[in-house]
Amino acid sequence: MTTPKKNPIITLTTDFGADGIFVASMKGVILGINPKVNLIDVTHAIPSYDIEEAAFLVKSFYQDFPSCSIHIVVVDPGVGSPRKPLLIQTRHGYFVGPDNGVFTHILRSEKPKVWTIHQEKFLRVSLGQTFHGRDLFAPVAARLSRGEKPGRLGSIMKTPVMIPTKEPLLVSPKRVCGEVVYVDKFGNLITNISLSYMKTLGWEKNLQNLTVKVSGRDLGGLHQFYSESSKGKGRALINSFGDLEIFCNQGNAQKKLGLKKGASVEVWMS
Amino acid sequence: MTTPKKNPIITLTTDFGADGIFVASMKGVILGINPKVNLIDVTHAIPSYDIEEAAFLVKSFYQDFPSCSIHIVVVDPGVGSPRKPLLIQTRHGYFVGPDNGVFTHILRSEKPKVWTIHQEKFLRVSLGQTFHGRDLFAPVAARLSRGEKPGRLGSIMKTPVMIPTKEPLLVSPKRVCGEVVYVDKFGNLITNISLSYMKTLGWEKNLQNLTVKVSGRDLGGLHQFYSESSKGKGRALINSFGDLEIFCNQGNAQKKLGLKKGASVEVWMS
Amino acid sequence: MTTPKKNPIITLTTDFGADGIFVASMKGVILGINPKVNLIDVTHAIPSYDIEEAAFLVKSFYQDFPSCSIHIVVVDPGVGSPRKPLLIQTRHGYFVGPDNGVFTHILRSEKPKVWTIHQEKFLRVSLGQTFHGRDLFAPVAARLSRGEKPGRLGSIMKTPVMIPTKEPLLVSPKRVCGEVVYVDKFGNLITNISLSYMKTLGWEKNLQNLTVKVSGRDLGGLHQFYSESSKGKGRALINSFGDLEIFCNQGNAQKKLGLKKGASVEVWMS
Repeated sequence: MTTPKKNPIITLTTDFGADGIFVASMKGVILGINPKVNLIDVTHAIPSYDIEEAAFLVKSFYQDFPSCSIHIVVVDPGVGSPRKPLLIQTRHGYFVGPDNGVFTHILRSEKPKVWTIHQEKFLRVSLGQTFHGRDLFAPVAARLSRGEKPGRLGSIMKTPVMIPTKEPLLVSPKRVCGEVVYVDKFGNLITNISLSYMKTLGWEKNLQNLTVKVSGRDLGGLHQFYSESSKGKGRALINSFGDLEIFCNQGNAQKKLGLKKGASVEVWMS
Repeated sequence: MTTPKKNPIITLTTDFGADGIFVASMKGVILGINPKVNLIDVTHAIPSYDIEEAAFLVKSFYQDFPSCSIHIVVVDPGVGSPRKPLLIQTRHGYFVGPDNGVFTHILRSEKPKVWTIHQEKFLRVSLGQTFHGRDLFAPVAARLSRGEKPGRLGSIMKTPVMIPTKEPLLVSPKRVCGEVVYVDKFGNLITNISLSYMKTLGWEKNLQNLTVKVSGRDLGGLHQFYSESSKGKGRALINSFGDLEIFCNQGNAQKKLGLKKGASVEVWMS
Repeated sequence: MTTPKKNPIITLTTDFGADGIFVASMKGVILGINPKVNLIDVTHAIPSYDIEEAAFLVKSFYQDFPSCSIHIVVVDPGVGSPRKPLLIQTRHGYFVGPDNGVFTHILRSEKPKVWTIHQEKFLRVSLGQTFHGRDLFAPVAARLSRGEKPGRLGSIMKTPVMIPTKEPLLVSPKRVCGEVVYVDKFGNLITNISLSYMKTLGWEKNLQNLTVKVSGRDLGGLHQFYSESSKGKGRALINSFGDLEIFCNQGNAQKKLGLKKGASVEVWMS
């Protein structure tokens, strides 16, 4: 992993919304400490306080960034309380945010080093305790981007908070049950059944024999790409993140099928 | 035209929405190849699959950018199918995206060089075929921004896809019929009747004699600026993009007049 | 104050929406003049023509940015009319935008130098008079970012437009009346009663003795942080901008209490 110092990148993922000034305030603080940072918005539209969705999104984008990148993630209903502030280093990049589960997938999939940030040292003097995004995570990420060592910004910690995640279940040797865990902008329904999970079952050679059912409805087998299927029908494919996805060619599968997050999905190997 | 190499700029125009991680993933890939790129979001709010609106928006902004800029445009319902990936060079900049009509106005107005991207060479290994924005267009634009020659990224092609565009019609020597082709954030109704079209009719010296009708309703003559007219009335002017626009001073013309995309507009020269 | 020249930052605050191309066009023009600028979006979601909300937001973020930053603010219903274009220099940064009150708080709190921009010299040739964001404010900010002196871009002016602002009222020695002036993305209700105002009353030592009422409803005393209170109850605290804020732990105070901008707020010292 390269140091963040050269061409530093800091990404921001929050539930702050893009309509107000919270995100801009964070960026101002970062640029005051390191004016060379390239600031990248991931999303600020995470539903308010939704730690689970934040964790899912973080899992999905970080590997597309250079390994020197610093990812700030702030969905932080416990801001100002004794919940701890984290700094995480992995071979795919650095992560800064609250210790409340938003980094669950990172902590599980990577072999990370984890520090509790020295809050007493790095928290900006502020009039209130509602905005650690600006007052703590932003300055710590900015210092990291200048090459300061994680070990000087925090103390090693052992047991960061992890939240339960929704895993698929092998209910019989040829049948997997999962669920919809995210709905994207097009109304595509992203499930928790991944190609890598199917590989653990030895199914990857026979994907053409799979059948997908969603809330009891048969969607047939896997497609390769969206426009391969007729318009307006609910169909399934493995998307470019490696997840089983329910789509509707040039339509909105969520509306078409009347489904939402949590809907049950079954995969059968015949 | 200068090379993209110095102070490289890549803009992004998509129907991906700003709420998810698609755009961030593209940016991560680009920065992994060229960390010096200045990434500029144009819009990610194009209605899903709306190639026509993408084409209209691209026409409207590209000339405001330096001629070394690279514009990625991804509204791509045919992603993963045999539709071709394009690279276009004009004196106003470079364009990268699917061969489905999103570049119609560029192909018609400029004298572009057009290449089909060597997909077999530059498509990132991916688990699925749903995200060429990240897996093909982003890496090709990033390589271009490092100074790689278009001729090494693709093969010259002759007949890129163009979609029919809505053109105004001279129905009698003094009467032009057109329509509303876009509604902006303020509810202003942008028409397909442009100042440059009126110049082809020799009308530019007598604009004070024009009368504008929209869906049969008389809006009077042209104004110079919004606040010149009384509040809350539907009025018309030539906007700063050179297009005839129906507005409502400090109000929302779309709501006030109950009109939308496709509404008919007439201009009379008296 | 440092010069904008090194690592130049230009921020953008508008009512243009993030869905269209207005903001991108401004950025293209800026980068054409100074390709080194780091462009930061503050918000483009100010309600159309809402000068008062623009003024409130500007007040809240500018001090978080480096003092060399240039802040473009365009909420400009009078664009194209004889309203003046402004350039303002303070010890906290530069400001560029229309002379209509959007800079009211800056003009009052700082000791600014104010110039009217030489519009006749710097307005880009355009087909219409509807987009000074792109045609005047963008190029002037870009020139400033290259080190051009304000005195060469405009003429000193004395009486910029200021709008009336909503101030809290001391209705008896121990009772202050104010109102909700902004609602953030979480539904938190931000009031015009600030910690600095309470300091002028000598109350800062006895904040634990305050009681907050909103539209006649007793919310009790001040909290320190959100998660300190039980979920779903309307409560109050001093937020990190130093303003009295009504919140609802992991909920939406606006919806919970059925309140909006303009709702009355009272603070009692017992």
